[in-house]
Amino acid sequence: MAKNLQIIPLGGLRGIGKNMTVYEYGRNIMVVDCGVMFPANDMYGIDLVLPDFDYVVENQDKLRGIFLTHGHMDHIGALPYLLREVETPIYGTPLTLGLVERRLAEKNVLHKTDLRVLDKGSRHHAGPFRVSPFAVAHSIPDAVGLVIETPVGKIVHTGDYKMDETPAGGYTTDLATLRELTRGGVLAMLGDSTNADQPGRTQTEAVVRETLDHLFAQAKGERIIIATFSSMLARLQEIINLAQKHGRRVTLTGRSLVENVGLARELGYLDAPDHLIVDARADVRREELVVLATGSQGEPRSALNKMAEGTHRQVRVGNGDTIIISGGTIPGNEEDVGRMINKLFEQGANVIYGPMATVHVSGHGSRGDMRAMLEAVKPRYLIPVHGEPRHLHLHRQLAGETGLRAERVFILKEGMPWVSDGQKAWTGEQAELVDVWVDGRLVGEIGEIVMRDRHRLSQEGFIVALIPVNKQRQLAGEPQLVSRGFVRMDEAGELLEASRDEIRRQVERGSRDMRRSLEDFFFRATQSRPVVLPQFIHV
Amino acid sequence: MAKNLQIIPLGGLRGIGKNMTVYEYGRNIMVVDCGVMFPANDMYGIDLVLPDFDYVVENQDKLRGIFLTHGHMDHIGALPYLLREVETPIYGTPLTLGLVERRLAEKNVLHKTDLRVLDKGSRHHAGPFRVSPFAVAHSIPDAVGLVIETPVGKIVHTGDYKMDETPAGGYTTDLATLRELTRGGVLAMLGDSTNADQPGRTQTEAVVRETLDHLFAQAKGERIIIATFSSMLARLQEIINLAQKHGRRVTLTGRSLVENVGLARELGYLDAPDHLIVDARADVRREELVVLATGSQGEPRSALNKMAEGTHRQVRVGNGDTIIISGGTIPGNEEDVGRMINKLFEQGANVIYGPMATVHVSGHGSRGDMRAMLEAVKPRYLIPVHGEPRHLHLHRQLAGETGLRAERVFILKEGMPWVSDGQKAWTGEQAELVDVWVDGRLVGEIGEIVMRDRHRLSQEGFIVALIPVNKQRQLAGEPQLVSRGFVRMDEAGELLEASRDEIRRQVERGSRDMRRSLEDFFFRATQSRPVVLPQFIHV
Repeated sequence: MAKNLQIIPLGGLRGIGKNMTVYEYGRNIMVVDCGVMFPANDMYGIDLVLPDFDYVVENQDKLRGIFLTHGHMDHIGALPYLLREVETPIYGTPLTLGLVERRLAEKNVLHKTDLRVLDKGSRHHAGPFRVSPFAVAHSIPDAVGLVIETPVGKIVHTGDYKMDETPAGGYTTDLATLRELTRGGVLAMLGDSTNADQPGRTQTEAVVRETLDHLFAQAKGERIIIATFSSMLARLQEIINLAQKHGRRVTLTGRSLVENVGLARELGYLDAPDHLIVDARADVRREELVVLATGSQGEPRSALNKMAEGTHRQVRVGNGDTIIISGGTIPGNEEDVGRMINKLFEQGANVIYGPMATVHVSGHGSRGDMRAMLEAVKPRYLIPVHGEPRHLHLHRQLAGETGLRAERVFILKEGMPWVSDGQKAWTGEQAELVDVWVDGRLVGEIGEIVMRDRHRLSQEGFIVALIPVNKQRQLAGEPQLVSRGFVRMDEAGELLEASRDEIRRQVERGSRDMRRSLEDFFFRATQSRPVVLPQFIHV
Repeated sequence: MAKNLQIIPLGGLRGIGKNMTVYEYGRNIMVVDCGVMFPANDMYGIDLVLPDFDYVVENQDKLRGIFLTHGHMDHIGALPYLLREVETPIYGTPLTLGLVERRLAEKNVLHKTDLRVLDKGSRHHAGPFRVSPFAVAHSIPDAVGLVIETPVGKIVHTGDYKMDETPAGGYTTDLATLRELTRGGVLAMLGDSTNADQPGRTQTEAVVRETLDHLFAQAKGERIIIATFSSMLARLQEIINLAQKHGRRVTLTGRSLVENVGLARELGYLDAPDHLIVDARADVRREELVVLATGSQGEPRSALNKMAEGTHRQVRVGNGDTIIISGGTIPGNEEDVGRMINKLFEQGANVIYGPMATVHVSGHGSRGDMRAMLEAVKPRYLIPVHGEPRHLHLHRQLAGETGLRAERVFILKEGMPWVSDGQKAWTGEQAELVDVWVDGRLVGEIGEIVMRDRHRLSQEGFIVALIPVNKQRQLAGEPQLVSRGFVRMDEAGELLEASRDEIRRQVERGSRDMRRSLEDFFFRATQSRPVVLPQFIHV
């Protein structure tokens, strides 16, 4: 049997997150990225979602290494969980590895890892694969895409990118190197689809810089507070430069921000003179200060949200504060962000957000950028990745506009292998993957059934009916109801009494389905369907 | 004591919805609008939110009438609940009254209502108030703003509006009449703030018409499915006209759509020849059909969502369908809408949504429109309404740009009266208002405590521990755990056993706070905090 290349996406096709791709040839596997996904609003109580990487664990004897494209959590966050089960070299650029080290140390798995620097211009062997990075512009420095030479042809794995000719920190997408590396043709490209529904080009970071410069000038005499993603190190550098230009000091608030800035300064990715960064309690006049804060998504425990709630220990906001939300709202966070902004205004601050001024641009390319990538790489096959199904389909439409026929574009499912002999390509049988939910210390123990219960409990609460019965299944005492989240039982005397009567009636009648009877009773009385659990107490 | 005018907003200042304003002078009250709000994602199990209208009920002897600006649910939806408690004339334009009649009939309160037509050009007396409507452009026909003459001066109540010179159906905002009615000056304006964070002018409906025309031409040979708000009757008229132009029939799916179209046709607000509208089962070729469907917000039971799920009885979508989402996504609905679009693409349809084409424009004016209104009315005082606090504050900023000083702009809270003698203005004492939640048949019975329980249940579930004890408070049998939404108890044998041991230990120790002990136990074991309810069974 001839050997074929298999590419199996383990995540990243049903949402932005948990990016992880398996490359397999013969008895060799390499993995690109190993990220987490943040839960949707209806994944009640879930902290994180991991990709289902059982396939990698089961085949760890074949595993030749994990290559990381950049240091965002949706690309590195699941590594600590995978590395509890496998040992393998981890390749990444210096900043990416710095962020990985911190994450591994937090989760106590650092000791057993073999971190290897992925230098630009280098080429790394992993079994039959040869991997060469090329720089890409993204919202974090030191991001790369990968050209992966396989025995059947070259694959371009773009990672997250945009085409920005005037980015922060000079990190442009290096199409020259990419063209060089892909001479002789590309079998397939796995391309970022995040913004496939955004027409035109993604604006350059230079626009954000100009807007912020203008806002700094306008805010003369006021304190400036800026909330942004702590991982947007390029944006942070711009803000630090502007603070210097406008004669302000910078203070940091929010754990991830303090940590990321510390790490980036240590590794030389963030240039900030020591005297510029001051403690929040330092004796600096308000109007000479820029407060950099976490909280662009309105996260409850973030620094800016604490300011909005009036519970931040060092910073009280009010009149004389210009607050800039310099981060796009991730879908699902709109309500939290909106409420936080409401409260900041109510405290007297002026808040600049949304379409009022370009204080944020995406780190992902829009259709114009994606088109430029397709035209630079000219792959024989396209596998759209990093998006929800709608983005993958729109990426296919876009590729069609560049002349790539629809049958050359493979919209995969997670767990579905793309297979090629270097000429033809087809899909293999899809493995059943299960999202792995992390809830506190529980990893993978919460499944669909528990989630359905949580949903139902959230809507109508529950009632446990304690029914004392004797051996003849006759009532042997007063039934008791224990309930939460349904109605206020202390104010529902009539309903309570009526439900006890119902229980008595059903026991006398010898009802075989007490649960159903009580569910029907409560529905008739309230048109609600709480979870009902009758418990017979044998006395 | 001189008589003063009081204006008390009962809703509409903490979100888009439940609009209701009390005007009071001496022993006279009139009310403008009486709407509902749709619940935020974290109002678990709640169907609707009503304004707290106790003040109106308690003062019904003073009530001279309710004036309605237009027929959207956030302006009329709470009427059936109010009319269970008070009797008073209801004034509205013919379409608004038609929609009110239907809503009242559904809720069985139609018999006791006195509906009065608010003709354009008319003036209505309600105690000391004289009310004159003026036409406004909005996303429903027959919308009006009100000029309210009071003994201390004129008030302009804009209602929802935009400045659209080329609207659907010719419903422009009638600034000429407004200027005429406000000759002699305006004491105060209550102005729509919905889009105060949107720069520029709201685009005209004519742009949507052109885009749809273009998409109809492109979709030749395909079936067209369009999802829009059933209340956007102007948009529906455009689509019907385009169907005629492009030689297509129209079929309707979704209860509210069928009802609204029926009513609007009956009242002459929607012009559609009988042969054009066909049943979904009619023998019409796919490529000659436009399916108008509910579901632009991804609502689970809407027609388009059923098509996405493959459960719609008449319409199966797939290859050869062009689906247009012609409605903006209301904040909080992004996840539902996104999932629905994903599934439609996965079924093979082509979906047009979001920024890819201008298939929707807002019915509310942006900053440019709001500025034009401020300059036409030139009020002495501005009371920003119809928005969240951020919008109200940005409306104040905008008014400042037109020369209205900040102290002349009153950002009120719900229940806080604005008071004026015709010259000066000030605020009165804020009454404590409570949002009234509707959950099934329960109106106002679900409060904060139940909601907190629902939230906690949604995150971690619950455990009821049944602990049999004798009179000496010694364990008299095996403790039992009843649980949902925590972990799968049938797979958590060890945890179950350990928790029974803990109960035994605590009973032996004579623990006075079994709940706390068990909460701590489960937190140590899982880092989760389910609701824990120990129940001692005395045997």
